[in-house]
Amino acid sequence: MTRELLSEMVDKGLVTQTGLISHGRGEAFDYLMGEKSLQSSLRAERAAAAHLLRAKNPVVCVNGNAAALDPKNLISLAKEVPAKIEVNIFHRTERRMELLISYMEENGAEVVLGRDPDARIPGLESDRALCTKTGIYDSDVILVPIEDGDRAKALADMGKTVISIDLNPLSRTSKAAAVSISDEMSRALENIIGSVREMKGRHDVIEETIRSFSNDNNRKKTIEEICSSLRNELNGGV
Amino acid sequence: MTRELLSEMVDKGLVTQTGLISHGRGEAFDYLMGEKSLQSSLRAERAAAAHLLRAKNPVVCVNGNAAALDPKNLISLAKEVPAKIEVNIFHRTERRMELLISYMEENGAEVVLGRDPDARIPGLESDRALCTKTGIYDSDVILVPIEDGDRAKALADMGKTVISIDLNPLSRTSKAAAVSISDEMSRALENIIGSVREMKGRHDVIEETIRSFSNDNNRKKTIEEICSSLRNELNGGV
Repeated sequence: MTRELLSEMVDKGLVTQTGLISHGRGEAFDYLMGEKSLQSSLRAERAAAAHLLRAKNPVVCVNGNAAALDPKNLISLAKEVPAKIEVNIFHRTERRMELLISYMEENGAEVVLGRDPDARIPGLESDRALCTKTGIYDSDVILVPIEDGDRAKALADMGKTVISIDLNPLSRTSKAAAVSISDEMSRALENIIGSVREMKGRHDVIEETIRSFSNDNNRKKTIEEICSSLRNELNGGV
Repeated sequence: MTRELLSEMVDKGLVTQTGLISHGRGEAFDYLMGEKSLQSSLRAERAAAAHLLRAKNPVVCVNGNAAALDPKNLISLAKEVPAKIEVNIFHRTERRMELLISYMEENGAEVVLGRDPDARIPGLESDRALCTKTGIYDSDVILVPIEDGDRAKALADMGKTVISIDLNPLSRTSKAAAVSISDEMSRALENIIGSVREMKGRHDVIEETIRSFSNDNNRKKTIEEICSSLRNELNGGV
């Protein structure tokens, strides 16, 4: 069903063919995880919620695959924090930008940044650097679902707290992030939304959650959980 | 580069959009393997060569992704064994069949079966069952690179020795096969061709290679090798 949806979205121009290959890579990791949130993913999602709540200017970054897969939960999360939404794509054309921003608006987003970029992410070339000053450029905490590794690294190099959602725990995006969530995007968003609701206004809990989270340890645990899942699968059950 | 090639092949009609997602899944596993043939893959490839050489009617099955990725090595292997080539696709249309068969012919294949199917693989529905009597239907050993799980299982249920090339060692295709090669297709084909050359005419070596190969053990070793590779990668080197 997801595959058919994405294939439709390619025909409409929201998703690129490269986006389909990238989705397939994610599917493989999701499969390795038994298509459920690992314990380590849940911990990263909770840390992500804490960072978003503590932020001065949090931004949810949306690209073609993210918008196509689950606009509703991206919008819900942004409303719940609250955070700004900015569309930012790798294969940038004005037509695709407009299609994606309209698609987010049709799905209930009130303000979607990205139409009129007035700033650049340092270290990225050409159109890939474009962003808005009040959104991505001035953000302190930024959630990047299904992001390209170069852009994730460039955002981290700007001193931002980058929260990635990327099924591959070893991708360059996961490596660049301060909080690397290895989980399917919809599951991750729902879990973050749940934690945001639970922690909102509880400053001590927020601080303690951030303080006690080690992204390095957590990524190691993700690998161990994936290997356990592989062995279980080989032995017939998950 | 491979991604651009496949994207071009979608535009030409040889590969489907679903084929792109499927390629992405493979890429993820290739990445987990450090983009090289594992020891367990090399063992399976050697066993595959032995089975192909011992066969009475070996067939190399070719679908859209396989043809697009590496027609030359598919043809080289078929010539070296020798084995028949048959095009057999999941999303079958007469146009795609003709495109793929012509593409294989343009790349040097002398006889490509599949244009005029006159038999059916039992247990598969509608057009997916179509094949030729002298090719797939009457084959005793069949190499299926990047094959769908249902078809791999249906072929195994016919009593054929199914050799799969599928980067996912836990896929339904890998589970259904008698020899499950978890390796990138071009690397796998080159390794099989090498083993075919080395073993050709050496009946004792062929028999001993088949006798000493345990597919179950080998799949377990693949998982262990992947987990080692993941841990190494996490620690910074591969």
